[in-house]
Amino acid sequence: MCRWLAYHGSPITIDKLLTKPNHSLVDQSINARHLSLPGFPMAKQFPGHDFPTNGDGFGIAFVGREGNIGQFREITPAWDSHNLHSLAEQIETGTLLAHVRAAPGGSIAEDNCHPFVHDGWMFQHNGGVGGFEKMARDLRMDVDPELYPFIMGNSDTETCFYLALTYGLASDPVGAMMKLNDRIEQARADNNVTAPFTACMAASNGDILVTMRVSSRENLGSGPVPESPSLYHAHGAAKIRMADGTEEHLPEDTQLVCSEPLELDFSDHEWVPVEDRTISLFQDGKEPQHTSVPVN
Amino acid sequence: MCRWLAYHGSPITIDKLLTKPNHSLVDQSINARHLSLPGFPMAKQFPGHDFPTNGDGFGIAFVGREGNIGQFREITPAWDSHNLHSLAEQIETGTLLAHVRAAPGGSIAEDNCHPFVHDGWMFQHNGGVGGFEKMARDLRMDVDPELYPFIMGNSDTETCFYLALTYGLASDPVGAMMKLNDRIEQARADNNVTAPFTACMAASNGDILVTMRVSSRENLGSGPVPESPSLYHAHGAAKIRMADGTEEHLPEDTQLVCSEPLELDFSDHEWVPVEDRTISLFQDGKEPQHTSVPVN
Amino acid sequence: MCRWLAYHGSPITIDKLLTKPNHSLVDQSINARHLSLPGFPMAKQFPGHDFPTNGDGFGIAFVGREGNIGQFREITPAWDSHNLHSLAEQIETGTLLAHVRAAPGGSIAEDNCHPFVHDGWMFQHNGGVGGFEKMARDLRMDVDPELYPFIMGNSDTETCFYLALTYGLASDPVGAMMKLNDRIEQARADNNVTAPFTACMAASNGDILVTMRVSSRENLGSGPVPESPSLYHAHGAAKIRMADGTEEHLPEDTQLVCSEPLELDFSDHEWVPVEDRTISLFQDGKEPQHTSVPVN
Amino acid sequence: MCRWLAYHGSPITIDKLLTKPNHSLVDQSINARHLSLPGFPMAKQFPGHDFPTNGDGFGIAFVGREGNIGQFREITPAWDSHNLHSLAEQIETGTLLAHVRAAPGGSIAEDNCHPFVHDGWMFQHNGGVGGFEKMARDLRMDVDPELYPFIMGNSDTETCFYLALTYGLASDPVGAMMKLNDRIEQARADNNVTAPFTACMAASNGDILVTMRVSSRENLGSGPVPESPSLYHAHGAAKIRMADGTEEHLPEDTQLVCSEPLELDFSDHEWVPVEDRTISLFQDGKEPQHTSVPVN
Repeated sequence: MCRWLAYHGSPITIDKLLTKPNHSLVDQSINARHLSLPGFPMAKQFPGHDFPTNGDGFGIAFVGREGNIGQFREITPAWDSHNLHSLAEQIETGTLLAHVRAAPGGSIAEDNCHPFVHDGWMFQHNGGVGGFEKMARDLRMDVDPELYPFIMGNSDTETCFYLALTYGLASDPVGAMMKLNDRIEQARADNNVTAPFTACMAASNGDILVTMRVSSRENLGSGPVPESPSLYHAHGAAKIRMADGTEEHLPEDTQLVCSEPLELDFSDHEWVPVEDRTISLFQDGKEPQHTSVPVN
Repeated sequence: MCRWLAYHGSPITIDKLLTKPNHSLVDQSINARHLSLPGFPMAKQFPGHDFPTNGDGFGIAFVGREGNIGQFREITPAWDSHNLHSLAEQIETGTLLAHVRAAPGGSIAEDNCHPFVHDGWMFQHNGGVGGFEKMARDLRMDVDPELYPFIMGNSDTETCFYLALTYGLASDPVGAMMKLNDRIEQARADNNVTAPFTACMAASNGDILVTMRVSSRENLGSGPVPESPSLYHAHGAAKIRMADGTEEHLPEDTQLVCSEPLELDFSDHEWVPVEDRTISLFQDGKEPQHTSVPVN
Repeated sequence: MCRWLAYHGSPITIDKLLTKPNHSLVDQSINARHLSLPGFPMAKQFPGHDFPTNGDGFGIAFVGREGNIGQFREITPAWDSHNLHSLAEQIETGTLLAHVRAAPGGSIAEDNCHPFVHDGWMFQHNGGVGGFEKMARDLRMDVDPELYPFIMGNSDTETCFYLALTYGLASDPVGAMMKLNDRIEQARADNNVTAPFTACMAASNGDILVTMRVSSRENLGSGPVPESPSLYHAHGAAKIRMADGTEEHLPEDTQLVCSEPLELDFSDHEWVPVEDRTISLFQDGKEPQHTSVPVN
Repeated sequence: MCRWLAYHGSPITIDKLLTKPNHSLVDQSINARHLSLPGFPMAKQFPGHDFPTNGDGFGIAFVGREGNIGQFREITPAWDSHNLHSLAEQIETGTLLAHVRAAPGGSIAEDNCHPFVHDGWMFQHNGGVGGFEKMARDLRMDVDPELYPFIMGNSDTETCFYLALTYGLASDPVGAMMKLNDRIEQARADNNVTAPFTACMAASNGDILVTMRVSSRENLGSGPVPESPSLYHAHGAAKIRMADGTEEHLPEDTQLVCSEPLELDFSDHEWVPVEDRTISLFQDGKEPQHTSVPVN
């Protein structure tokens, strides 16, 4: 499992999300464990959080100068990155994706660190495509041959990103995410994969933010029905408790989606769990639009 | 906190210690947490284990070809190192020190990864010199000026190593460790440091292995009396349960000292807790020799 | 361009090849430039050497304990690696492949560092598959689907390795290399690639060592006919001048193939240029067997 | 040797200096060699350039949001850094220090990468303190004990920075640099060091930029009188040729100091060599103020 956050709203300096909150994304890179301890008071609010460490690299992508996407990724743990701490104070953006990775023993490379960026889009994922090694060839063959050469690493997520682009992420983001889920389930069936696909995914081009929370209900064999990774949404002028005891108020137009709330002792009403099997579309000046993902 | 092990005995391939046991040092780099969960059955056997992640680099040092010490260190987590897994299958030695580091947010550099090596000696440490930043100048001034230029990093441990060498580690290892402890306590008093010095340290030249388990009883102000980091000793033909379900028997002359036993479901009698405030000397063909560290 | 060496013979410690010669592979990682200076006395002996720096990672693979292949790769320059210097003193092997990479601005990852290792074979390459991005999809589709999931990175060479395995490297190494060259030329034609394929490749399973020196003569458009990367062979009890002024004699049964001689002021007769368009097979107790690669 | 640049003027995006010019600082990290080839037409304009590769890490520091200094450093070569390329497009500043490091075989760590930053100041250096290992203890003892704990690495430059701060960099920058040079020369004499001190140094707090070009004339024994590393100054609306064939005009108030001009085919009058043995002070709206460094 990993942890991520996605922010869309008026420009803010990103340390307010990444490094300063009392359960910032950087804190979640090493301290997510408290939320999963049996008996810990808040544990019941955080289903599916069973791994404390997200130390296998990290990354951020953001809409910056002249609308270009800036990207910064490192293969070392976020909690150790002096660069991240310093840059987070300097970068101001209205659209940020940020990710801390848990892939212990996997391939550690910048090319495998989220968010992935291509042609004005950025993409990240918490979860996994079970049995990906059996399906990778099939899935990559479905990627538009024009896009294929841009696949750099070996992560399941990067292939998902290029599939989503192939399926029309730019023109119909909700439809593309739906088709991505369908295609993966088809590949699981085709390749007799029983390990589930689990996903909280986020994609943005700076204008819209689309997320998908889903996990396999199909082809699970005798395995348990998986719980989708947790996902929370905060909108409006959310206030966040900082590690130094102060509070920061986010802008009125804030749309913030994240694996875990960024504060440990939060007010329930501000962090809304995202429904399972949902694709959500966030746009400026509009209510979030939620679409259910049917079981095939 | 960190985790380490030290092996002295007949030559073995080091994967039997580092990567294959069901709670190998690599496993301890990411999974030490289970041992500290309240209510976890074995937790009571592991006092002072309160941090699950030792992901801020790692290192090994070993006596190799022609008596030269080989050294391998990386700044990324041990659990991710394909190099470590491959090399551990290839390296055979009669004396190994190995260390996984926890220094989240500190300086991440090979120069700060244990074990440190100089002039035929290797050295590693679990714990910390509280208030080191206040005492670093004083302590480094005590290092033999001939040795001073070999200090490469900023870790407390490396300075401790060069102090121990200055105090005669090569000629009187027990005395040098004793003097090291005294000197640090003196520096704490001189600089009004109340944060404790805590240590499980190991040093070896391939002939002898010396360890020290100690923590401050002096100058603690109103702070709690610290618990020394855990330390265990296994000697003789210890068998260790491997992650694959098999068992490995270590050689008859094994002297194995480690922060945590290398197996999760061990037989109590084989892993002996090292007494607190003890300097232990392990030598071929001799019984371990334990010396108490008095409170000044 | 990169630099590599391949050794097959009686076991030796590998510092004699990697770090100690006066133009060791590590020296070639940063100092290959002297060989390409116009007017430099030896430059005429080193055609095709026009880039001084091979600093984009390095790797070694060797047959070790119980016949297993050991592998060690880092993404930082070889000239900076204290690990490589220390391990080279400790590793003894009868079959070594070693590589310093030049891919400035490319994807820097251990997964892209040579030598690649799979199922008892190791593989490395100096040169490049021109237009690889256009052909990658076609070429990877030719890889045995059972082998496909083991492709970890995005380098042209790794795909070549798995193609060679697919084409029977284990049973007919010369035929597999020939077919690899043919397949790449076919893909160049199919995809209208005029950038050449250039290669000095080496593969070994510890019993045999096979190398191929070749570059495109087909589909070059109006581009110049490329020169294949340089390749040299030294066999028998070659002596090599060390950086410290001494000489080391390699074993009588030495088969050493390398991009550049490992010494700067060598005796001509000991370093034999490998003929262009040649696949060479080196086996214990047999004369090297050379096969010409025809132009299609 | 290393390469660096320092910019002070109206805010610009830093890719115009770091990545886009036809001999940008990133290009100088790998391609400085052309300038030192014997017979190369421009070589005579670049005395003291004898090493093509500056691949041992890099760093930038800049005055950013709310006057805070942002810092970004990596231990891998600048030419390989996708992060640097992406961030350079996003960062806009009026004061930038940027550095590519050449320390082959030395200690590779972020802590040793320039620019160093402390308390509102940033500092970088091309050159070296010859015999530093003999003088490090003496020089570090001269550092204000309050500043001593902030020394993180083992580089000569970082110690120089803290000495300069100790000597009053903030209140009298020219005097502090002068005293730094004197102190190093004194240490060379005290420790019988004949290896020279060579330096092009730059320091800034965002308001002023101070540089020093100097090398030892004292205590050289029988060694040659060293040439100071090259240093160039461009002021006013300098235009720079970009790698893509375009030209960029820098702001009217530009003060740009760099090891090498940022373009290969420049107009002589725009890049003015800085006189040897000179401390230069650059301030908004004032003419640069140059002070000679006397030989003691």
